[in-house]
Amino acid sequence: MSDYGQKFDEYYRAVEEALPAFLPQGDTPQKTVQEAMAYSLLGGGKRIRAVLCLAFCELCGGTREAAMPFACAIEMVHAYSLIHDDLPCMDDDDLRRGKPSCHIQYGEALAVLAGDGLLTLGFETILSQYYTGKYPPQVIARAGAELAAAIGTAGMIGGQVMDIEHEGKPISAGDLNILHSMKTGALIRASARMGCVVAGAPDDVIARADKYAKNIGIAFQITDDILDVTSTEEKLGKPVESDRQMGKTTYATLYGVEKSRQIVKDLVLEADLSIKGSVLDDPFLYRLADQLAQRDC
Amino acid sequence: MSDYGQKFDEYYRAVEEALPAFLPQGDTPQKTVQEAMAYSLLGGGKRIRAVLCLAFCELCGGTREAAMPFACAIEMVHAYSLIHDDLPCMDDDDLRRGKPSCHIQYGEALAVLAGDGLLTLGFETILSQYYTGKYPPQVIARAGAELAAAIGTAGMIGGQVMDIEHEGKPISAGDLNILHSMKTGALIRASARMGCVVAGAPDDVIARADKYAKNIGIAFQITDDILDVTSTEEKLGKPVESDRQMGKTTYATLYGVEKSRQIVKDLVLEADLSIKGSVLDDPFLYRLADQLAQRDC
Repeated sequence: MSDYGQKFDEYYRAVEEALPAFLPQGDTPQKTVQEAMAYSLLGGGKRIRAVLCLAFCELCGGTREAAMPFACAIEMVHAYSLIHDDLPCMDDDDLRRGKPSCHIQYGEALAVLAGDGLLTLGFETILSQYYTGKYPPQVIARAGAELAAAIGTAGMIGGQVMDIEHEGKPISAGDLNILHSMKTGALIRASARMGCVVAGAPDDVIARADKYAKNIGIAFQITDDILDVTSTEEKLGKPVESDRQMGKTTYATLYGVEKSRQIVKDLVLEADLSIKGSVLDDPFLYRLADQLAQRDC
Repeated sequence: MSDYGQKFDEYYRAVEEALPAFLPQGDTPQKTVQEAMAYSLLGGGKRIRAVLCLAFCELCGGTREAAMPFACAIEMVHAYSLIHDDLPCMDDDDLRRGKPSCHIQYGEALAVLAGDGLLTLGFETILSQYYTGKYPPQVIARAGAELAAAIGTAGMIGGQVMDIEHEGKPISAGDLNILHSMKTGALIRASARMGCVVAGAPDDVIARADKYAKNIGIAFQITDDILDVTSTEEKLGKPVESDRQMGKTTYATLYGVEKSRQIVKDLVLEADLSIKGSVLDDPFLYRLADQLAQRDC
Protein backbone atom coordinates (compact mmCIF):
# COMPACT_ATOMS: atom_id res chain seq x y z
CA MET A 1 0.00 0.00 0.00
CA SER A 2 1.26 3.49 -0.86
CA ASP A 3 2.03 6.06 1.84
CA TYR A 4 -1.14 7.79 0.71
CA GLY A 5 -3.20 4.61 0.88
CA GLN A 6 -1.84 3.81 4.32
CA LYS A 7 -2.62 7.27 5.66
CA PHE A 8 -6.12 7.31 4.21
CA ASP A 9 -6.72 3.89 5.72
CA GLU A 10 -5.50 5.10 9.11
CA TYR A 11 -7.89 8.05 9.02
CA TYR A 12 -10.72 5.84 7.77
CA ARG A 13 -10.23 3.26 10.53
CA ALA A 14 -10.01 5.95 13.19
CA VAL A 15 -13.37 7.34 12.03
CA GLU A 16 -14.98 3.88 11.89
CA GLU A 17 -13.75 3.19 15.41
CA ALA A 18 -14.89 6.52 16.80
CA LEU A 19 -18.36 6.77 15.25
CA PRO A 20 -20.27 4.13 17.28
CA ALA A 21 -19.38 5.78 20.59
CA PHE A 22 -21.17 8.98 19.55
CA LEU A 23 -24.44 7.14 18.92
CA PRO A 24 -27.07 7.00 21.67
CA GLN A 25 -27.26 3.50 23.14
CA GLY A 26 -29.22 1.51 25.64
CA ASP A 27 -32.55 -0.19 26.10
CA THR A 28 -34.60 2.98 25.90
CA PRO A 29 -38.17 3.49 24.65
CA GLN A 30 -36.66 5.10 21.54
CA LYS A 31 -34.24 2.28 20.72
CA THR A 32 -35.82 1.57 17.30
CA VAL A 33 -34.84 4.99 16.01
CA GLN A 34 -31.39 4.55 17.50
CA GLU A 35 -31.07 1.30 15.54
CA ALA A 36 -32.17 3.02 12.33
CA MET A 37 -29.62 5.78 12.93
CA ALA A 38 -26.85 3.23 13.52
CA TYR A 39 -27.93 1.25 10.44
CA SER A 40 -27.45 4.25 8.18
CA LEU A 41 -24.48 5.87 9.90
CA LEU A 42 -22.41 2.73 10.29
CA GLY A 43 -23.45 1.11 7.02
CA GLY A 44 -20.33 1.89 5.06
CA GLY A 45 -19.36 4.95 3.10
CA LYS A 46 -15.99 6.33 2.08
CA ARG A 47 -15.78 8.82 4.99
CA ILE A 48 -14.15 11.35 2.68
CA ARG A 49 -15.68 14.29 4.52
CA ALA A 50 -14.42 13.05 7.88
CA VAL A 51 -10.98 12.31 6.44
CA LEU A 52 -10.79 15.85 5.03
CA CYS A 53 -11.63 17.28 8.45
CA LEU A 54 -8.97 15.19 10.21
CA ALA A 55 -6.31 15.82 7.56
CA PHE A 56 -6.78 19.59 7.46
CA CYS A 57 -6.74 19.76 11.24
CA GLU A 58 -3.42 17.87 11.35
CA LEU A 59 -1.88 19.95 8.55
CA CYS A 60 -2.81 23.10 10.47
CA GLY A 61 -1.03 21.84 13.59
CA GLY A 62 -3.98 20.28 15.42
CA THR A 63 -4.47 16.65 16.35
CA ARG A 64 -6.60 13.94 14.80
CA GLU A 65 -8.20 13.33 18.20
CA ALA A 66 -9.26 16.95 18.55
CA ALA A 67 -10.91 16.93 15.13
CA MET A 68 -12.69 13.59 15.65
CA PRO A 69 -16.00 14.77 17.20
CA PHE A 70 -16.32 17.33 14.41
CA ALA A 71 -15.43 14.79 11.71
CA CYS A 72 -18.00 12.35 13.11
CA ALA A 73 -20.63 15.09 13.28
CA ILE A 74 -20.07 15.74 9.57
CA GLU A 75 -20.61 12.04 8.79
CA MET A 76 -23.85 12.09 10.81
CA VAL A 77 -25.12 15.04 8.81
CA HIS A 78 -24.09 13.35 5.57
CA ALA A 79 -25.94 10.17 6.63
CA TYR A 80 -29.06 12.19 7.48
CA SER A 81 -29.03 13.77 4.02
CA LEU A 82 -28.82 10.36 2.33
CA ILE A 83 -31.72 8.95 4.39
CA HIS A 84 -34.01 11.86 3.54
CA ASP A 85 -32.88 11.95 -0.13
CA ASP A 86 -33.79 8.27 -0.49
CA LEU A 87 -37.37 8.72 0.83
CA PRO A 88 -40.26 7.82 -1.50
CA CYS A 89 -41.29 11.49 -1.76
CA MET A 90 -37.73 12.46 -2.83
CA ASP A 91 -35.51 10.25 -5.02
CA ASP A 92 -37.37 7.08 -3.98
CA ASP A 93 -34.25 4.91 -3.84
CA ASP A 94 -34.64 1.42 -2.41
CA LEU A 95 -30.93 0.65 -2.34
CA ARG A 96 -28.06 2.47 -0.66
CA ARG A 97 -24.56 1.03 -0.67
CA GLY A 98 -25.90 -2.35 -1.74
CA LYS A 99 -28.32 -2.61 1.18
CA PRO A 100 -31.99 -1.68 1.61
CA SER A 101 -32.22 2.05 2.23
CA CYS A 102 -33.36 3.19 5.66
CA HIS A 103 -37.07 3.54 4.87
CA ILE A 104 -37.15 0.09 3.24
CA GLN A 105 -35.55 -1.43 6.33
CA TYR A 106 -37.38 0.53 9.04
CA GLY A 107 -40.39 2.14 7.38
CA GLU A 108 -40.90 5.71 6.35
CA ALA A 109 -41.75 7.21 9.73
CA LEU A 110 -38.62 5.88 11.41
CA ALA A 111 -36.52 6.90 8.40
CA VAL A 112 -37.71 10.50 8.67
CA LEU A 113 -37.02 10.43 12.40
CA ALA A 114 -33.63 8.71 12.01
CA GLY A 115 -32.63 11.49 9.59
CA ASP A 116 -33.87 14.14 12.00
CA GLY A 117 -32.04 12.32 14.78
CA LEU A 118 -28.71 12.21 12.94
CA LEU A 119 -28.93 15.88 11.96
CA THR A 120 -29.63 16.81 15.57
CA LEU A 121 -26.95 14.46 16.87
CA GLY A 122 -24.43 16.10 14.54
CA PHE A 123 -24.96 19.43 16.24
CA GLU A 124 -25.16 17.84 19.68
CA THR A 125 -21.84 16.05 19.10
CA ILE A 126 -20.16 19.37 18.34
CA LEU A 127 -21.92 21.53 20.90
CA SER A 128 -21.69 19.09 23.81
CA GLN A 129 -17.90 19.42 23.54
CA TYR A 130 -18.57 22.57 25.55
CA TYR A 131 -19.01 20.41 28.64
CA THR A 132 -15.66 18.61 28.15
CA GLY A 133 -13.71 21.83 28.57
CA LYS A 134 -11.27 20.57 25.90
CA TYR A 135 -11.93 23.29 23.31
CA PRO A 136 -11.99 27.08 23.40
CA PRO A 137 -15.74 27.88 23.21
CA GLN A 138 -15.12 30.02 20.13
CA VAL A 139 -13.85 26.95 18.26
CA ILE A 140 -17.06 25.09 19.09
CA ALA A 141 -19.27 28.03 18.10
CA ARG A 142 -17.37 28.76 14.88
CA ALA A 143 -17.14 25.13 13.75
CA GLY A 144 -20.86 24.67 14.46
CA ALA A 145 -21.66 27.85 12.55
CA GLU A 146 -19.64 26.62 9.55
CA LEU A 147 -21.57 23.36 9.54
CA ALA A 148 -25.00 24.98 9.92
CA ALA A 149 -24.38 27.45 7.09
CA ALA A 150 -23.18 24.67 4.77
CA ILE A 151 -26.22 22.44 5.18
CA GLY A 152 -29.07 24.99 5.24
CA THR A 153 -31.16 26.34 2.41
CA ALA A 154 -28.19 28.25 0.98
CA GLY A 155 -26.25 24.97 0.97
CA MET A 156 -27.15 21.29 1.02
CA ILE A 157 -30.92 21.62 1.46
CA GLY A 158 -31.09 24.27 -1.28
CA GLY A 159 -29.24 21.91 -3.61
CA GLN A 160 -31.69 19.11 -2.91
CA VAL A 161 -34.58 21.48 -3.63
CA MET A 162 -33.05 22.41 -6.99
CA ASP A 163 -32.47 18.74 -7.67
CA ILE A 164 -36.06 17.61 -7.14
CA GLU A 165 -37.45 20.67 -8.92
CA HIS A 166 -35.36 19.97 -12.02
CA GLU A 167 -36.29 16.30 -12.14
CA GLY A 168 -37.18 15.43 -15.72
CA LYS A 169 -36.50 18.99 -16.87
CA PRO A 170 -33.48 20.37 -18.70
CA ILE A 171 -30.98 22.35 -16.62
CA SER A 172 -28.32 24.75 -17.84
CA ALA A 173 -24.64 24.13 -17.18
CA GLY A 174 -24.60 27.17 -14.90
CA ASP A 175 -27.52 25.95 -12.80
CA LEU A 176 -26.05 22.45 -12.66
CA ASN A 177 -22.91 23.97 -11.18
CA ILE A 178 -24.93 25.90 -8.62
CA LEU A 179 -26.93 22.77 -7.76
CA HIS A 180 -23.84 20.67 -7.08
CA SER A 181 -21.93 23.40 -5.30
CA MET A 182 -24.88 23.58 -2.89
CA LYS A 183 -25.94 19.94 -2.67
CA THR A 184 -22.55 18.29 -2.20
CA GLY A 185 -19.93 21.04 -2.44
CA ALA A 186 -20.94 23.06 0.60
CA LEU A 187 -20.55 20.17 3.08
CA ILE A 188 -17.24 19.08 1.56
CA ARG A 189 -15.94 22.64 1.91
CA ALA A 190 -17.22 22.83 5.48
CA SER A 191 -15.39 19.58 6.28
CA ALA A 192 -12.04 21.06 5.28
CA ARG A 193 -12.81 24.42 6.89
CA MET A 194 -13.89 22.87 10.19
CA GLY A 195 -10.65 20.90 10.38
CA CYS A 196 -8.76 24.18 10.07
CA VAL A 197 -11.02 25.92 12.60
CA VAL A 198 -10.43 23.19 15.20
CA ALA A 199 -6.67 23.71 14.80
CA GLY A 200 -7.08 27.47 15.18
CA ALA A 201 -5.78 28.17 11.66
CA PRO A 202 -5.71 31.77 10.36
CA ASP A 203 -8.26 32.98 7.78
CA ASP A 204 -5.92 32.83 4.79
CA VAL A 205 -5.27 29.14 5.41
CA ILE A 206 -9.01 28.49 5.80
CA ALA A 207 -9.52 30.25 2.45
CA ARG A 208 -6.97 27.96 0.77
CA ALA A 209 -8.57 24.89 2.31
CA ASP A 210 -11.92 26.14 1.09
CA LYS A 211 -10.68 26.55 -2.47
CA TYR A 212 -9.10 23.10 -2.51
CA ALA A 213 -12.29 21.50 -1.18
CA LYS A 214 -14.47 23.47 -3.56
CA ASN A 215 -12.58 22.11 -6.54
CA ILE A 216 -12.37 18.51 -5.40
CA GLY A 217 -16.05 18.69 -4.43
CA ILE A 218 -17.11 19.46 -8.01
CA ALA A 219 -14.61 16.92 -9.35
CA PHE A 220 -16.11 14.33 -7.00
CA GLN A 221 -19.64 15.04 -8.23
CA ILE A 222 -18.70 14.92 -11.91
CA THR A 223 -16.95 11.61 -11.29
CA ASP A 224 -20.19 10.37 -9.67
CA ASP A 225 -22.07 11.33 -12.81
CA ILE A 226 -19.50 9.61 -15.03
CA LEU A 227 -19.65 6.44 -12.91
CA ASP A 228 -23.44 6.36 -13.19
CA VAL A 229 -22.88 5.88 -16.92
CA THR A 230 -19.69 3.80 -16.99
CA SER A 231 -19.74 1.61 -13.86
CA THR A 232 -21.71 -1.47 -12.80
CA GLU A 233 -24.35 -1.95 -10.10
CA GLU A 234 -22.03 -4.45 -8.42
CA LYS A 235 -19.21 -1.92 -8.03
CA LEU A 236 -21.39 1.05 -7.03
CA GLY A 237 -23.76 -0.81 -4.69
CA LYS A 238 -26.66 1.02 -6.35
CA PRO A 239 -28.36 0.88 -9.75
CA VAL A 240 -26.43 2.48 -12.62
CA GLU A 241 -27.95 4.72 -15.28
CA SER A 242 -30.40 5.86 -12.58
CA ASP A 243 -29.76 9.51 -13.50
CA ARG A 244 -30.72 8.95 -17.12
CA GLN A 245 -33.80 6.95 -16.11
CA MET A 246 -34.93 9.74 -13.78
CA GLY A 247 -34.46 12.15 -16.69
CA LYS A 248 -31.75 14.01 -14.78
CA THR A 249 -29.31 16.27 -16.54
CA THR A 250 -25.80 15.48 -15.30
CA TYR A 251 -22.32 16.53 -16.33
CA ALA A 252 -22.15 13.27 -18.26
CA THR A 253 -25.36 13.93 -20.20
CA LEU A 254 -24.45 17.60 -20.68
CA TYR A 255 -20.82 17.29 -21.82
CA GLY A 256 -20.37 13.59 -22.53
CA VAL A 257 -17.99 11.33 -20.65
CA GLU A 258 -14.74 12.44 -22.31
CA LYS A 259 -15.24 16.18 -21.84
CA SER A 260 -16.40 15.54 -18.27
CA ARG A 261 -13.15 13.67 -17.57
CA GLN A 262 -11.19 16.67 -18.87
CA ILE A 263 -13.13 19.03 -16.59
CA VAL A 264 -12.28 16.78 -13.64
CA LYS A 265 -8.58 16.98 -14.53
CA ASP A 266 -8.72 20.79 -14.66
CA LEU A 267 -10.46 20.93 -11.29
CA VAL A 268 -7.81 18.72 -9.69
CA LEU A 269 -5.16 21.09 -11.06
CA GLU A 270 -7.00 24.04 -9.54
CA ALA A 271 -7.20 22.23 -6.21
CA ASP A 272 -3.46 21.57 -6.30
CA LEU A 273 -2.69 25.21 -7.05
CA SER A 274 -4.72 26.44 -4.09
CA ILE A 275 -2.53 24.61 -1.54
CA LYS A 276 0.86 25.01 -3.26
CA GLY A 277 3.50 26.77 -1.18
CA SER A 278 1.35 26.93 1.94
CA VAL A 279 1.20 24.97 5.19
CA LEU A 280 -1.30 22.74 3.35
CA ASP A 281 1.26 21.79 0.67
CA ASP A 282 1.34 18.08 1.49
CA PRO A 283 1.56 14.94 -0.68
CA PHE A 284 -1.54 13.54 1.00
CA LEU A 285 -3.80 16.27 -0.32
CA TYR A 286 -2.38 16.04 -3.87
CA ARG A 287 -2.94 12.30 -3.93
CA LEU A 288 -6.39 12.61 -2.37
CA ALA A 289 -7.50 14.93 -5.16
CA ASP A 290 -6.12 12.52 -7.77
CA GLN A 291 -7.77 9.50 -6.20
CA LEU A 292 -11.21 11.11 -5.92
CA ALA A 293 -11.08 11.87 -9.61
CA GLN A 294 -9.80 8.43 -10.65
CA ARG A 295 -11.99 6.25 -8.41
CA ASP A 296 -14.15 3.54 -9.98
CA CYS A 297 -16.79 3.30 -7.24
CA MET B 1 -55.85 43.94 29.66
CA SER B 2 -54.12 42.71 32.83
CA ASP B 3 -50.46 43.48 33.52
CA TYR B 4 -49.81 39.87 32.71
CA GLY B 5 -51.78 40.01 29.47
CA GLN B 6 -49.99 43.16 28.42
CA LYS B 7 -46.58 41.71 29.11
CA PHE B 8 -47.31 38.46 27.32
CA ASP B 9 -48.60 40.46 24.37
CA GLU B 10 -45.43 42.56 24.33
CA TYR B 11 -43.26 39.46 24.25
CA TYR B 12 -45.49 37.84 21.64
CA ARG B 13 -45.38 40.86 19.33
CA ALA B 14 -41.62 41.19 19.72
CA VAL B 15 -41.22 37.57 18.60
CA GLU B 16 -43.63 37.98 15.68
CA GLU B 17 -41.70 41.05 14.56
CA ALA B 18 -38.30 39.44 14.92
CA LEU B 19 -39.00 36.06 13.30
CA PRO B 20 -39.24 37.04 9.60
CA ALA B 21 -35.81 38.67 9.61
CA PHE B 22 -34.18 35.35 10.52
CA LEU B 23 -35.67 33.59 7.51
CA PRO B 24 -33.64 33.28 4.31
CA GLN B 25 -35.02 35.60 1.64
CA GLY B 26 -34.50 36.51 -1.96
CA ASP B 27 -35.12 35.23 -5.44
CA THR B 28 -32.91 32.18 -5.11
CA PRO B 29 -33.19 28.78 -6.80
CA GLN B 30 -34.38 27.40 -3.46
CA LYS B 31 -37.10 29.98 -2.85
CA THR B 32 -39.91 27.38 -2.80
CA VAL B 33 -38.51 25.75 0.33
CA GLN B 34 -38.01 29.19 1.85
CA GLU B 35 -41.69 29.88 1.22
CA ALA B 36 -42.69 26.59 2.82
CA MET B 37 -40.52 27.39 5.85
CA ALA B 38 -42.08 30.85 6.19
CA TYR B 39 -45.57 29.38 5.76
CA SER B 40 -45.11 27.09 8.75
CA LEU B 41 -42.97 29.33 10.93
CA LEU B 42 -45.05 32.47 10.53
CA GLY B 43 -48.43 30.75 10.42
CA GLY B 44 -49.49 31.52 13.96
CA GLY B 45 -48.82 29.70 17.18
CA LYS B 46 -48.80 30.86 20.78
CA ARG B 47 -45.01 31.42 20.91
CA ILE B 48 -45.01 30.12 24.48
CA ARG B 49 -41.52 28.64 24.13
CA ALA B 50 -40.09 31.91 22.83
CA VAL B 51 -41.88 33.90 25.52
CA LEU B 52 -40.41 31.61 28.20
CA CYS B 53 -36.92 32.19 26.81
CA LEU B 54 -37.33 35.98 26.78
CA ALA B 55 -38.96 36.12 30.21
CA PHE B 56 -36.36 33.96 31.93
CA CYS B 57 -33.55 35.95 30.33
CA GLU B 58 -35.03 39.21 31.63
CA LEU B 59 -35.68 37.81 35.10
CA CYS B 60 -32.04 36.70 35.25
CA GLY B 61 -30.84 40.22 34.42
CA GLY B 62 -30.42 39.86 30.65
CA THR B 63 -32.28 41.75 27.94
CA ARG B 64 -35.12 40.69 25.69
CA GLU B 65 -33.03 41.67 22.67
CA ALA B 66 -30.16 39.41 23.71
CA ALA B 67 -32.50 36.43 24.08
CA MET B 68 -34.33 37.04 20.80
CA PRO B 69 -32.17 34.99 18.37
CA PHE B 70 -32.33 32.07 20.79
CA ALA B 71 -36.10 32.44 21.30
CA CYS B 72 -36.62 32.54 17.52
CA ALA B 73 -34.40 29.49 17.05
CA ILE B 74 -36.62 27.59 19.48
CA GLU B 75 -39.73 28.54 17.48
CA MET B 76 -38.02 27.31 14.29
CA VAL B 77 -37.28 23.98 15.89
CA HIS B 78 -40.84 23.77 17.19
CA ALA B 79 -42.20 24.53 13.70
CA TYR B 80 -39.94 21.84 12.18
CA SER B 81 -41.29 19.26 14.62
CA LEU B 82 -44.90 20.11 13.72
CA ILE B 83 -44.21 19.85 9.96
CA HIS B 84 -42.61 16.42 10.28
CA ASP B 85 -45.24 15.21 12.81
CA ASP B 86 -48.02 16.11 10.36
CA LEU B 87 -46.49 14.10 7.47
CA PRO B 88 -48.57 11.25 5.99
CA CYS B 89 -46.12 8.65 7.35
CA MET B 90 -46.44 10.12 10.88
CA ASP B 91 -49.71 11.55 12.28
CA ASP B 92 -51.07 12.30 8.78
CA ASP B 93 -52.71 15.58 9.77
CA ASP B 94 -54.13 17.73 6.96
CA LEU B 95 -54.86 20.71 9.16
CA ARG B 96 -52.61 22.77 11.40
CA ARG B 97 -53.87 25.91 13.11
CA GLY B 98 -56.91 25.99 10.86
CA LYS B 99 -54.84 25.96 7.66
CA PRO B 100 -53.62 23.18 5.35
CA SER B 101 -50.56 21.61 6.90
CA CYS B 102 -47.23 22.10 5.14
CA HIS B 103 -47.28 18.91 3.04
CA ILE B 104 -50.86 19.61 1.89
CA GLN B 105 -49.84 23.10 0.81
CA TYR B 106 -46.40 22.36 -0.70
CA GLY B 107 -46.25 18.60 -1.22
CA GLU B 108 -44.43 16.00 0.81
CA ALA B 109 -40.91 16.51 -0.54
CA LEU B 110 -40.89 20.23 0.21
CA ALA B 111 -42.45 19.61 3.62
CA VAL B 112 -39.66 17.21 4.59
CA LEU B 113 -37.10 19.74 3.34
CA ALA B 114 -38.83 22.70 4.99
CA GLY B 115 -38.67 20.81 8.30
CA ASP B 116 -35.02 19.98 7.74
CA GLY B 117 -34.46 23.61 6.80
CA LEU B 118 -36.07 25.00 9.93
CA LEU B 119 -34.18 22.60 12.18
CA THR B 120 -30.91 23.60 10.55
CA LEU B 121 -31.83 27.28 10.59
CA GLY B 122 -32.52 27.04 14.31
CA PHE B 123 -28.93 25.99 14.95
CA GLU B 124 -27.59 28.46 12.39
CA THR B 125 -29.50 31.31 14.04
CA ILE B 126 -27.84 30.52 17.36
CA LEU B 127 -24.38 29.64 16.09
CA SER B 128 -24.04 32.52 13.62
CA GLN B 129 -24.27 34.86 16.61
CA TYR B 130 -20.59 34.00 16.91
CA TYR B 131 -19.88 36.36 14.02
CA THR B 132 -21.73 39.29 15.66
CA GLY B 133 -19.32 39.37 18.60
CA LYS B 134 -22.27 40.24 20.85
CA TYR B 135 -22.15 37.11 23.03
CA PRO B 136 -19.43 35.33 24.95
CA PRO B 137 -18.74 32.21 22.83
CA GLN B 138 -19.46 29.99 25.82
CA VAL B 139 -23.04 31.33 25.94
CA ILE B 140 -23.51 30.39 22.28
CA ALA B 141 -22.01 26.92 22.74
CA ARG B 142 -23.92 26.19 25.96
CA ALA B 143 -27.28 27.46 24.68
CA GLY B 144 -26.83 25.45 21.49
CA ALA B 145 -25.89 22.36 23.50
CA GLU B 146 -29.03 22.76 25.64
CA LEU B 147 -31.19 22.93 22.51
CA ALA B 148 -29.54 19.97 20.78
CA ALA B 149 -29.86 17.73 23.84
CA ALA B 150 -33.54 18.63 24.26
CA ILE B 151 -34.60 17.77 20.73
CA GLY B 152 -32.56 14.62 20.06
CA THR B 153 -33.48 10.98 20.58
CA ALA B 154 -33.37 11.41 24.36
CA GLY B 155 -35.82 14.30 23.99
CA MET B 156 -38.28 15.43 21.36
CA ILE B 157 -37.46 12.87 18.67
CA GLY B 158 -37.56 10.04 21.20
CA GLY B 159 -40.99 11.21 22.32
CA GLN B 160 -42.28 11.18 18.77
CA VAL B 161 -40.91 7.65 18.31
CA MET B 162 -42.78 6.49 21.43
CA ASP B 163 -45.87 8.26 20.19
CA ILE B 164 -46.03 6.55 16.79
CA GLU B 165 -45.05 3.19 18.26
CA HIS B 166 -47.89 3.32 20.79
CA GLU B 167 -50.49 4.32 18.22
CA GLY B 168 -53.56 2.20 18.76
CA LYS B 169 -51.94 0.39 21.68
CA PRO B 170 -52.49 0.88 25.39
CA ILE B 171 -49.80 2.82 27.29
CA SER B 172 -49.19 2.89 31.02
CA ALA B 173 -49.41 6.12 32.99
CA GLY B 174 -45.67 5.93 33.61
CA ASP B 175 -44.82 5.58 29.91
CA LEU B 176 -47.27 8.33 29.01
CA ASN B 177 -45.38 10.61 31.38
CA ILE B 178 -42.06 9.67 29.81
CA LEU B 179 -43.50 10.18 26.33
CA HIS B 180 -44.72 13.70 27.08
CA SER B 181 -41.69 14.72 29.07
CA MET B 182 -39.63 13.85 25.98
CA LYS B 183 -41.95 14.93 23.18
CA THR B 184 -43.00 18.36 24.47
CA GLY B 185 -41.44 18.75 27.92
CA ALA B 186 -37.79 18.73 26.88
CA LEU B 187 -38.07 21.69 24.49
CA ILE B 188 -40.15 23.72 26.95
CA ARG B 189 -37.51 23.13 29.61
CA ALA B 190 -34.75 24.06 27.17
CA SER B 191 -36.60 27.30 26.36
CA ALA B 192 -36.50 28.41 29.98
CA ARG B 193 -32.96 27.14 30.51
CA MET B 194 -31.63 28.88 27.41
CA GLY B 195 -33.09 32.20 28.56
CA CYS B 196 -31.15 31.81 31.81
CA VAL B 197 -27.97 30.77 29.97
CA VAL B 198 -28.07 33.86 27.73
CA ALA B 199 -28.27 36.03 30.86
CA GLY B 200 -25.33 34.20 32.42
CA ALA B 201 -27.42 32.87 35.33
CA PRO B 202 -25.82 30.52 37.90
CA ASP B 203 -26.64 26.80 37.91
CA ASP B 204 -29.03 26.91 40.87
CA VAL B 205 -31.22 29.42 39.07
CA ILE B 206 -31.14 27.32 35.90
CA ALA B 207 -32.24 24.34 38.01
CA ARG B 208 -35.22 26.29 39.36
CA ALA B 209 -36.18 27.45 35.88
CA ASP B 210 -35.93 23.86 34.71
CA LYS B 211 -38.25 22.62 37.44
CA TYR B 212 -40.80 25.34 36.74
CA ALA B 213 -40.75 24.57 33.01
CA LYS B 214 -40.92 20.83 33.59
CA ASN B 215 -44.12 21.20 35.59
CA ILE B 216 -45.85 23.66 33.29
CA GLY B 217 -44.78 21.52 30.33
CA ILE B 218 -46.69 18.50 31.62
CA ALA B 219 -49.60 20.72 32.66
CA PHE B 220 -49.64 22.14 29.12
CA GLN B 221 -49.77 18.68 27.56
CA ILE B 222 -52.53 17.43 29.85
CA THR B 223 -54.53 20.56 29.04
CA ASP B 224 -54.03 19.74 25.34
CA ASP B 225 -55.45 16.28 25.96
CA ILE B 226 -58.41 17.71 27.89
CA LEU B 227 -59.14 20.22 25.10
CA ASP B 228 -59.12 17.46 22.51
CA VAL B 229 -62.14 16.08 24.37
CA THR B 230 -63.88 19.26 25.55
CA SER B 231 -63.20 21.94 22.92
CA THR B 232 -64.46 22.57 19.38
CA GLU B 233 -62.71 22.40 16.01
CA GLU B 234 -63.41 26.11 15.55
CA LYS B 235 -61.56 27.07 18.73
CA LEU B 236 -58.63 24.69 18.30
CA GLY B 237 -58.11 25.16 14.55
CA LYS B 238 -57.80 21.38 14.24
CA PRO B 239 -60.21 18.44 14.52
CA VAL B 240 -61.24 17.51 18.07
CA GLU B 241 -61.44 13.96 19.40
CA SER B 242 -58.56 13.16 17.03
CA ASP B 243 -56.70 11.40 19.84
CA ARG B 244 -59.59 9.06 20.53
CA GLN B 245 -60.07 8.37 16.82
CA MET B 246 -56.40 7.52 16.43
CA GLY B 247 -56.77 5.15 19.38
CA LYS B 248 -54.30 7.17 21.43
CA THR B 249 -54.14 6.88 25.18
CA THR B 250 -54.04 10.38 26.66
CA TYR B 251 -54.29 11.76 30.17
CA ALA B 252 -57.97 12.40 29.43
CA THR B 253 -58.66 8.80 28.40
CA LEU B 254 -56.48 7.44 31.21
CA TYR B 255 -57.75 9.53 34.14
CA GLY B 256 -60.89 11.21 32.81
CA VAL B 257 -61.31 14.95 32.44
CA GLU B 258 -61.94 15.80 36.10
CA LYS B 259 -58.95 13.94 37.53
CA SER B 260 -56.79 15.35 34.71
CA ARG B 261 -57.82 18.87 35.72
CA GLN B 262 -56.77 18.12 39.31
CA ILE B 263 -53.37 16.88 38.15
CA VAL B 264 -52.91 20.12 36.20
CA LYS B 265 -53.66 22.14 39.34
CA ASP B 266 -51.09 20.17 41.33
CA LEU B 267 -48.46 20.70 38.63
CA VAL B 268 -49.05 24.46 38.60
CA LEU B 269 -48.57 24.47 42.36
CA GLU B 270 -45.28 22.59 41.94
CA ALA B 271 -44.17 25.09 39.30
CA ASP B 272 -44.97 27.98 41.64
CA LEU B 273 -43.01 26.40 44.48
CA SER B 274 -39.90 26.00 42.35
CA ILE B 275 -39.52 29.74 41.78
CA LYS B 276 -40.71 31.01 45.18
CA GLY B 277 -38.19 33.14 47.04
CA SER B 278 -35.71 33.24 44.17
CA VAL B 279 -34.77 35.80 41.53
CA LEU B 280 -37.45 34.10 39.39
CA ASP B 281 -40.21 34.91 41.94
CA ASP B 282 -42.24 37.14 39.64
CA PRO B 283 -45.99 37.62 39.10
CA PHE B 284 -45.57 37.01 35.37
CA LEU B 285 -44.42 33.42 35.84
CA TYR B 286 -47.20 32.64 38.35
CA ARG B 287 -49.84 33.97 35.96
CA LEU B 288 -48.26 32.25 32.98
CA ALA B 289 -48.51 28.87 34.71
CA ASP B 290 -52.18 29.58 35.59
CA GLN B 291 -53.06 30.68 32.09
CA LEU B 292 -51.48 27.67 30.39
CA ALA B 293 -53.59 25.43 32.60
CA GLN B 294 -56.82 27.39 32.12
CA ARG B 295 -56.60 28.09 28.38
CA ASP B 296 -59.46 27.02 26.13
CA CYS B 297 -57.51 26.78 22.87
